[in-house]
Amino acid sequence: MSKASLRRPRGTRDFLPWDMIKRRYVIETIRSVFELYGFDEIETPAFEFLEVLTAKCGPDVKEQIYAFKDKAGRDLGLRFDLTVPLARIVASNPNLPKPFKRYCISRVWRYEEPQSGRFREFWQADADIVGSSKMDSDAEVIAVAISCLKKLGMKNFKVRLNNRKILESIASSADVDKELSLSVFRAIDKLDKIGHEGVKHELKKLGLTDLQILTIMDQISKSGNIDVIEKEISNMLTAEGREGINELAEIISNLELYGYSSYVVVDLSLARGLDYYTGPIFEVSAETTINVGSVAGGGRYDNLIELLGGPPTPATGISLGVDRIVEVLDEACMLPSIKTLTQVFVAYVNQSVKSEALRTAERLRAEGLKVEVDLMGRKLDRQLKYADAKGIPYAVIVGPEELKLGVYKLRDMRNRKEQTLNLQELIRTLKLSASSLSQ
Amino acid sequence: MSKASLRRPRGTRDFLPWDMIKRRYVIETIRSVFELYGFDEIETPAFEFLEVLTAKCGPDVKEQIYAFKDKAGRDLGLRFDLTVPLARIVASNPNLPKPFKRYCISRVWRYEEPQSGRFREFWQADADIVGSSKMDSDAEVIAVAISCLKKLGMKNFKVRLNNRKILESIASSADVDKELSLSVFRAIDKLDKIGHEGVKHELKKLGLTDLQILTIMDQISKSGNIDVIEKEISNMLTAEGREGINELAEIISNLELYGYSSYVVVDLSLARGLDYYTGPIFEVSAETTINVGSVAGGGRYDNLIELLGGPPTPATGISLGVDRIVEVLDEACMLPSIKTLTQVFVAYVNQSVKSEALRTAERLRAEGLKVEVDLMGRKLDRQLKYADAKGIPYAVIVGPEELKLGVYKLRDMRNRKEQTLNLQELIRTLKLSASSLSQ
Repeated sequence: MSKASLRRPRGTRDFLPWDMIKRRYVIETIRSVFELYGFDEIETPAFEFLEVLTAKCGPDVKEQIYAFKDKAGRDLGLRFDLTVPLARIVASNPNLPKPFKRYCISRVWRYEEPQSGRFREFWQADADIVGSSKMDSDAEVIAVAISCLKKLGMKNFKVRLNNRKILESIASSADVDKELSLSVFRAIDKLDKIGHEGVKHELKKLGLTDLQILTIMDQISKSGNIDVIEKEISNMLTAEGREGINELAEIISNLELYGYSSYVVVDLSLARGLDYYTGPIFEVSAETTINVGSVAGGGRYDNLIELLGGPPTPATGISLGVDRIVEVLDEACMLPSIKTLTQVFVAYVNQSVKSEALRTAERLRAEGLKVEVDLMGRKLDRQLKYADAKGIPYAVIVGPEELKLGVYKLRDMRNRKEQTLNLQELIRTLKLSASSLSQ
Repeated sequence: MSKASLRRPRGTRDFLPWDMIKRRYVIETIRSVFELYGFDEIETPAFEFLEVLTAKCGPDVKEQIYAFKDKAGRDLGLRFDLTVPLARIVASNPNLPKPFKRYCISRVWRYEEPQSGRFREFWQADADIVGSSKMDSDAEVIAVAISCLKKLGMKNFKVRLNNRKILESIASSADVDKELSLSVFRAIDKLDKIGHEGVKHELKKLGLTDLQILTIMDQISKSGNIDVIEKEISNMLTAEGREGINELAEIISNLELYGYSSYVVVDLSLARGLDYYTGPIFEVSAETTINVGSVAGGGRYDNLIELLGGPPTPATGISLGVDRIVEVLDEACMLPSIKTLTQVFVAYVNQSVKSEALRTAERLRAEGLKVEVDLMGRKLDRQLKYADAKGIPYAVIVGPEELKLGVYKLRDMRNRKEQTLNLQELIRTLKLSASSLSQ
């Protein structure tokens, strides 16, 4: 076996216990908020028929799909998001009561160039509302995302809002062929990565004239208050564009009811990379010292379910980037920084009291305490050294002398202070400490 | 888009909200027991280099790996278990304090013929102890599995125990070439699937004589109490076989300390399918009306980490089959049977009180209640019909008349009884009901 085998595939990660404690905290916090808003969990397979995945993803994402054939020669692909599988489920279960509000926190895969905050395997936390065309739904998924980030303690983030209908209107005002508009949006979506000149270059490659390019670049440069923007682009707006503006205004006035409108800014340069969006689109950016891009994004996709063979069904949703959120919060030291969840190590002085040590461990577990007991037959000092290296806060020492008196030594591993306690005192002390730690 | 697109790949499943509530209950129960025993969570990528996966899996499992090339031409495969990735992690992180006790609850993939309780994508819940050669560790992982099943309320299950060292001894007593023994174990492992005659046929194909086959079949037919078995096969045992017997005796005497020895039976026909086992092996079977095979299995694999490039490191572990456990418990009606976790639906009489309805929903969420509010602008009766279809137990009705008086109607959706309450009474009533439901 070559040393190469020690490696992981590029763009993937292992999460060791201290990483998982942070990730689990973020995931469970998001889950709790999703459930507060009445979203129900679903799960779908890691891979889908390639035909399903590529139905409306656009050429760039299509290139990023891990595609393979199964042994019967069928074309499969690892899912690149959680939205397409949701659309397939709704298409094939037309009798689900609507709105169908589902959440899913799970992994997806894209073959991208790995970089800061970007991996080939990553975790998304999605909340979607299927079956409602009302902007109340778009406002709710945005509110849910904001609630998640607030509950996680994230500060300084902004929700950028736009609408594919406004972008269509901009393209139309620049006399761009309707069939080209998705390509134009994809070019605009690269603004953060390749800058203004890069986008212009992409638009040129699509065959747009300099005048068309300038018209588009001028309009997408607008961001800020919805009323101001509406006035600025008012004379260019098509009927569809006006509808887009009204939808955004409705979302913002809904978000006022949640007390969240101050987080929102309209930004006409926001395009989103996927082809399936049809209406409002949104992206949440954290303003941090590290460059992770957006921490959440989403939008309305009213045609995708029909495209996958279901009845016409409006839908909207938001996806939180779990990995990026972890990275931002970790950088700000806002995640639990412990090595283990284990609360107590039961050590024993010698083999004569091993069975009593095991029984003591079981008694503590019956009280809900997380307990490790020595399994190596090591000497006491090595047992305690191990408990220390593992970061376990307490050690209970079982010894023959103490056993005769019906007591245990309890050592606080952080300050090495020891107490001698009977079983009831031991349980009470450890439970008290556990509940104070978890607060 | 063809209708084919509505389908999922064969052997995979979608889990809708009512499925996920059951699965989440099983997974979180297992997680809580794993943590009580001091196991820490890790997670690894869904795919690994194919070379890692196939290092010691054996030819049958190798055939079942979903293998594919990435865009750079590297050979990858979806993981077929959680043990090989753990071994790779330990090999590449030699400084982890030992024993390294990790759990992982996640999905794996095998291209098998789908059948009852057997899927191509399935979930395993693994607890492993790395770095200890003591039988205390094997006993502990078995005890953890038993604790999980007991906490889940499973009745009538048995832990079958064997040891690869005893199987080697049996093969040796039948004069089977050492290089053939793994093939012999793989044949024996198929006993449940293909029966005695089938196994004999497989052994014949390996080139064994009738006498060799009869010697093996006779010895593996023994099961029951360790002392009785030891006597029965005593004259055939090699030194290695005797070591295997002693190890099992030690595991059983350890399990007595947990009060679990009555669950255990030694069964010399147990072989386990994977090539990486080196010592004790174990399998948990539920005795149920449905045929799901084993619900957990595992064993000691002392060479795998070294094989993957790490230092020599003993290891043992057990894997619970989440899907099969869900199936067995569901069949016995022992899983939560509700359609949603959402506790309250906030309905509103007309648009004039919509903003008050949203604010009420937010107030209830701030109290930790799981609340859905109408997003469709529907008439009141349709809102309540929806809450009913969703299985939400309570509806709060916000109306203009009630609003003036500062009160709400609370409807119990199960018996349609209504109460008129102010906000504080409403919160108290709903929280009380929520806490009684969760008990």
